[in-house]
Amino acid sequence: MTVHFSRGIPPLEAIPSLAIAELTGTILSTEPDRVFQYAPIGHHTGDRELRDQLGAFHSVDPDRIFVTNGSLQALDLLAAHLLKDAPSHLVLAEAPTYDRAVQIFERHGGRVSGVPLRHDGLDLDILRERLRTEVPAFVYVIPDFQNPSGVTTSEEKRREIVRLSAEFGFTILEDIPYRELRFDGTAPTLLGELADGVDGARVLTMGSLSKILSPGLRVGYVIAPPGVPRALAALAESTYLSPAPLLQTVAARAFESGLVRQNIEAVRKLLRPRHDAAVEVVRKVLGDVALCVPEGGYYISVHLPVRTTEEELLAAASAESIALTRGSAFYPADSAPPAGTVFLRLPFQSLGGEEFTAGVTGLAAVARQAG
Amino acid sequence: MTVHFSRGIPPLEAIPSLAIAELTGTILSTEPDRVFQYAPIGHHTGDRELRDQLGAFHSVDPDRIFVTNGSLQALDLLAAHLLKDAPSHLVLAEAPTYDRAVQIFERHGGRVSGVPLRHDGLDLDILRERLRTEVPAFVYVIPDFQNPSGVTTSEEKRREIVRLSAEFGFTILEDIPYRELRFDGTAPTLLGELADGVDGARVLTMGSLSKILSPGLRVGYVIAPPGVPRALAALAESTYLSPAPLLQTVAARAFESGLVRQNIEAVRKLLRPRHDAAVEVVRKVLGDVALCVPEGGYYISVHLPVRTTEEELLAAASAESIALTRGSAFYPADSAPPAGTVFLRLPFQSLGGEEFTAGVTGLAAVARQAG
Repeated sequence: MTVHFSRGIPPLEAIPSLAIAELTGTILSTEPDRVFQYAPIGHHTGDRELRDQLGAFHSVDPDRIFVTNGSLQALDLLAAHLLKDAPSHLVLAEAPTYDRAVQIFERHGGRVSGVPLRHDGLDLDILRERLRTEVPAFVYVIPDFQNPSGVTTSEEKRREIVRLSAEFGFTILEDIPYRELRFDGTAPTLLGELADGVDGARVLTMGSLSKILSPGLRVGYVIAPPGVPRALAALAESTYLSPAPLLQTVAARAFESGLVRQNIEAVRKLLRPRHDAAVEVVRKVLGDVALCVPEGGYYISVHLPVRTTEEELLAAASAESIALTRGSAFYPADSAPPAGTVFLRLPFQSLGGEEFTAGVTGLAAVARQAG
Repeated sequence: MTVHFSRGIPPLEAIPSLAIAELTGTILSTEPDRVFQYAPIGHHTGDRELRDQLGAFHSVDPDRIFVTNGSLQALDLLAAHLLKDAPSHLVLAEAPTYDRAVQIFERHGGRVSGVPLRHDGLDLDILRERLRTEVPAFVYVIPDFQNPSGVTTSEEKRREIVRLSAEFGFTILEDIPYRELRFDGTAPTLLGELADGVDGARVLTMGSLSKILSPGLRVGYVIAPPGVPRALAALAESTYLSPAPLLQTVAARAFESGLVRQNIEAVRKLLRPRHDAAVEVVRKVLGDVALCVPEGGYYISVHLPVRTTEEELLAAASAESIALTRGSAFYPADSAPPAGTVFLRLPFQSLGGEEFTAGVTGLAAVARQAG
C-alpha cells in the first residue's frame, strides 16, 4: 500500500457533506428561481448575504469583501490587478511557498523571487536588504501554518512586515486558507488587521472555505481596502461574470446556521491527534530536521540531509511505495533548499497515525541509504 | 413603466428551476461526498459524465470537450491559449459583435479589428482583402442569431470561412450560445463540423447552458481538436482549479434525463410569438431598417437613420422611459455603424408583444424627432 505524502486536500470526514446537502435542499425548495438565474451584474462583488456573513466572521465591513470561484481565482485576479500598471514587476515570496501562486504571478508578468523562510516567518534581514535594491509590486505571505512548510509567522515579524509595507510602499498579499485550523496556542494578529493601525500600510487578505467547509463549493474571497473589491469585480465580470449564485447562498447559510463554526471545531478535533502523531514520529525517526513544529494546518516539513539528488531520493521512496511531492517545486526559481538537503512536505491531515509512522519510517530508511 | 431593450438574459420562465432543483436534490441525497470535495485534478477537462452527455449532444468524441465556469471563462482561457505565442496578435471579429468578447481579447493582448457583418454573415470580400494583408491569430464569429444583431451566417458563407481558415492558416472561434433556439427554417452546419471535412481548417466551438437550461449553473464548454482540451485544462487548473463538481453533475443529469431537450422545446415555444410580434412591429413602425429577420435567439437589431448623435438619441429615449444599450459599444474600436445611422439591439426574449410594441412605437417617435 502506498503512503501518500503528496496530497493537500481535506479528508472526506472533514467535509460536512450531509449538513451542506441539507442546507442546499432548503434553498432549492424556497428560492429556486433566484439561484438558477444570472447573479445581478454591474461590478458585483458577491452575494450580499455571503459578504455580510464573511464580514461578521472577520469583523470587517462587508463592503471590503469580494467573493470569487475559489481562492486560486482570487490570486489570479489579484495578480492581474496588482501587476497591471505596477512600476516594478518584482514579487517577493517566501521560499518555500505555494507553487501554484508562483505560476499565477509569473503568468501575469511577475518576476518572482524567494526570501528564505525561517521557523517563525520570513528572514527579515534579507527582506530589508532586498527592499533597499528594489521595491516589489507586492510581497506574498501565507502567515498561518504555511503550505508547504507548516511555519507560522510570529506576531513580531508580522508587525515588522506591515511596518515595512508602509515605509517602502509595497502591498502585502496575505493568504490564510488554513488559519482557522489551529491546534495549539493563540493566533497572532492578521496582517490585514495590523495594517489598520499603520498609516500607509497596505494589505490584501485572501480566504477560502475549502479547508473549513467544502472545496467543492469553490468559494474564495478577498478582504481589501475600500475600492479594491469593485475593481476586482469589474475584472471578474469580464472574465467569468460571477460565481454561481447557488453555491454562494449555500456558503452564506453555512455561516448563518453555525455550521462553519461547528465544522472548524470538528476538523480541529479530527486533525489534532494526526498532527501530534506526525510531530512525534518525525522527531523520533528523522531527528531535528523539521522547519518548525506546526501549530495547526495540514503540513509538517523537513530539510532532509542527503548526498543524492532529489530525483534519486523520490525515485527510491517511490520504489518503497512512498509518494512524495517534489519539494524543490515549492521554491521560486532563484532560490533552493539549504545545500546538502532535500525539502519534503509531509501532509498529515489525511493519514492516520500508523500510516504516517509507517511512511516516515520507510522514508528514514530510504534517506539513510541516500545519506 | 420603462421598456427595457437593454438586457440579454433569459426570462425566468425559460429556466426550469423546479426540475433542476429536483435533479439537484437527487444528487445531494445519493452522492453528497463526491460533489463537495475537490474535483479530481491533473489537467482535468471536466466531469466525465457531463463530457459524455455533451459529446452525445453534439455528436463528437467526449475527449474533444473541455468544461468551464460559463462560456465567458471559456473565451478568457481560449484568448490566453490562442494569443500566447501567436505570430500575429490580430483578431478579426464581426462588426458589430459581442462586446465582452472584444474586452477579453484586448486584455490578452489581442488587436481586435471589425469586419462588417451583412444580413447573412461576414462580408467575405472584405475578409479576403484583410487576409491578404495579415493573417490573424483567429477570427471570432457568432454564426447563429448573433448577439447583438440577430444575424445567422449562411451555409455558403460558413463553407467559405472554413475554406479560408485552411487556405490562410488561421483559427476560427465559433460561439454558439443561442444555436438551439431556432424558430424558423433549418440550422446551417456548425463551422466545427464543416472543418472536419477540410484539410488544415481549424475551428474551436464554444457552447453554454445559460440560454437552454440555466445561467446560474455557470456551465460553458469548448469543442476543440484533440490535444486542445488538455492544454486548456492545464491553464484552468492554474487559474481556478476546476468548476464546481455539483453544478457539472446537475448539468449532466439534465441532459441524461431529457430535461435539456424538453426545455429547448419549451423555450422555443415561449419565444417564438415574442419573436414574431417583434419582427412585425419593427417592420411596421420603423420601416426597412432591420439588419435581418432573425430566425431564432433573443435579438432583432436595426440601423436607425438619425441626424443626432447616439448619445442624444439614447438620452431622448430614456426620457420616454425606453432603456437601450449603447449600440456603438458592440463595434470593435476601428469600426462603426453606417454613417448617418445609430445601431440598436432590441432584445425581445423578455418582452410580451404589447410591451415590445409600445417600446418600438415610442422609439419611432423619438427617432422622428431626431431624424
